[in-house]
Amino acid sequence: MKIVVDGMGGDNAPKSNVEGVVSAIKEYNVDIIITGDKDILEKEFSNYEFDKSKLEIIHTTEIIENEDKPVKAIRCKKDSSMVVALQLVKEGKADAIVSAGSTGALLAGGLFVVGRIKGIDRPCLCPAIPNVKRGMTLIADGGANADCKVRNLVEFAAMTNIYSKKVLGIENPKISLANIGSEEGKGNELVKQSYEEIKGMDLNFIGNLEARDVINAKADVIVCDGFTGNILLKSAEGVAMSVMKLLKETFLSSTKGKLGAMLLKNDLKELKDFMDYSEYGGAPLLGVNGGVIKAHGSSNSKAIKNAINQGIKFAKGNVLKDIENFVQESKEKEEAKKIKNEEK
Amino acid sequence: MKIVVDGMGGDNAPKSNVEGVVSAIKEYNVDIIITGDKDILEKEFSNYEFDKSKLEIIHTTEIIENEDKPVKAIRCKKDSSMVVALQLVKEGKADAIVSAGSTGALLAGGLFVVGRIKGIDRPCLCPAIPNVKRGMTLIADGGANADCKVRNLVEFAAMTNIYSKKVLGIENPKISLANIGSEEGKGNELVKQSYEEIKGMDLNFIGNLEARDVINAKADVIVCDGFTGNILLKSAEGVAMSVMKLLKETFLSSTKGKLGAMLLKNDLKELKDFMDYSEYGGAPLLGVNGGVIKAHGSSNSKAIKNAINQGIKFAKGNVLKDIENFVQESKEKEEAKKIKNEEK
Repeated sequence: MKIVVDGMGGDNAPKSNVEGVVSAIKEYNVDIIITGDKDILEKEFSNYEFDKSKLEIIHTTEIIENEDKPVKAIRCKKDSSMVVALQLVKEGKADAIVSAGSTGALLAGGLFVVGRIKGIDRPCLCPAIPNVKRGMTLIADGGANADCKVRNLVEFAAMTNIYSKKVLGIENPKISLANIGSEEGKGNELVKQSYEEIKGMDLNFIGNLEARDVINAKADVIVCDGFTGNILLKSAEGVAMSVMKLLKETFLSSTKGKLGAMLLKNDLKELKDFMDYSEYGGAPLLGVNGGVIKAHGSSNSKAIKNAINQGIKFAKGNVLKDIENFVQESKEKEEAKKIKNEEK
Repeated sequence: MKIVVDGMGGDNAPKSNVEGVVSAIKEYNVDIIITGDKDILEKEFSNYEFDKSKLEIIHTTEIIENEDKPVKAIRCKKDSSMVVALQLVKEGKADAIVSAGSTGALLAGGLFVVGRIKGIDRPCLCPAIPNVKRGMTLIADGGANADCKVRNLVEFAAMTNIYSKKVLGIENPKISLANIGSEEGKGNELVKQSYEEIKGMDLNFIGNLEARDVINAKADVIVCDGFTGNILLKSAEGVAMSVMKLLKETFLSSTKGKLGAMLLKNDLKELKDFMDYSEYGGAPLLGVNGGVIKAHGSSNSKAIKNAINQGIKFAKGNVLKDIENFVQESKEKEEAKKIKNEEK
């Protein structure tokens, strides 16, 4: 079991990445490869006491920035910390990559360096959104595919079902479809047709879910096209951030407010943490031939450590094998259907 | 100038509807027709002092419920307060209808009773979402059309531009496209093609807007298909309601919390009002041949009065005429383009 960490990706790199790696080695006794500028990384690591035999540093000379065009960056910055890390997953030298770098570049790298699982049309990025039960709800797809076909949503449902069981430890994940009404027959053409397909699948499909109820923990997974998923997620995030900001302004606008806020300090901190989308671990890219975990750009060391743990569970849970099995079973079902139709 | 109010539609009907009508007559000196059960309405109105010459009650025997199938309800409940009111708009006996009844039925009634403006492919429903500048941002379409073409988004942009100027009094409305990134070239096929069309229109198009920034008042109007609009709106609404609920729980969970909340009572009330989506007036249905204003289902009398005022401004501002002009100009441009192409 080996996890590779993109040492230079993220707003707090390499400090948080290094600290997260040290914590993960201590807590999970996992072997880690980290990619990045060797001098800088070694200097960072020298601040910590840990089992150095568990760590390998691979020197890279380039960094992919958020401003870089994703596909171009992956193709041109061959010696970047991200591309070298992705290459290790591709070659089977690491089971999963954790990166807090550019989302677009990691998506492109997942596709073009690691590559799709044979039979999967489109991989999906699955960020989590906090819910009122202090848990999280996966959005699949969260923005990797702006235009989707029915087949894609079917694959997203199957892959997140596997991921939720194996990595998140949910026994019988509740899978739903993002929709504009809860009744069957609602929605746009994509969703109506996907509903028909998904309800015939061997999973706990609970039907349509309105965007208003996503935060109410009614489902473990929300399946949708990537455009919808991004709108859903960002709309929620925008409101959450703005409310916290307005609340702060309210508290600071008067002496009474300041006194009230002092009394409520711990409770408000808890609420703020709950609304902090960066606390909720990394988003897996499902459907590519290896573990790819996108950690939040502003990840602190705890978030990096948690993302590494996701990578470990991804590998231990044989998520790839399960997705391959799903592809195989779908193929067999499709063939059986064909034969049955021909016999008619 | 005459506004017709659906007297029996909404969670608080007919009490709030009647009270709203009385306030509107007093404040705007407007002529009102109200539809509904005459006995019940007369009894309600007898509680108020106002100029009775400004009011006409039209007796109806049926009510469309939220559970009714929209199209069927419009077709079968011919003597409902909503259908009779819509008919008055159709016949030109009223300039606009205000209804807090079933959204689906009002959309169906707008299409099948009032009818589309000639040349408009699809009317759009335009609810408003509160923003941090204590203003509101229109979403067009907010859920009337789950599947849209480029032409529809172009029409939504033109119609909301007119509405924002004439009814909301915004001089040079900032029109944006809901998208998953702010750069040109981002998004799904519908949005990419719509961007090209809208940027050539004679309006203040500010480009793409990420869902996260809707609440930040960067635009006056967000143009999108109705599926996206509904997801955007409901996701924001769900988070806003949940945060307020969590805040309340936090405050009530300890003596310190209760004391803090007492100190902050007025400020928190203000924040709660800001987050209350029912406070933000009615949603116009643009593109039908008359003023159709959908008031929130849980409208109080103030919300009904505000919606009546929207209806007044809609009629006074000649919104219909302006939309017809847009249709005419588009046609002429299209023809000029054709001739130019043929000449080549």
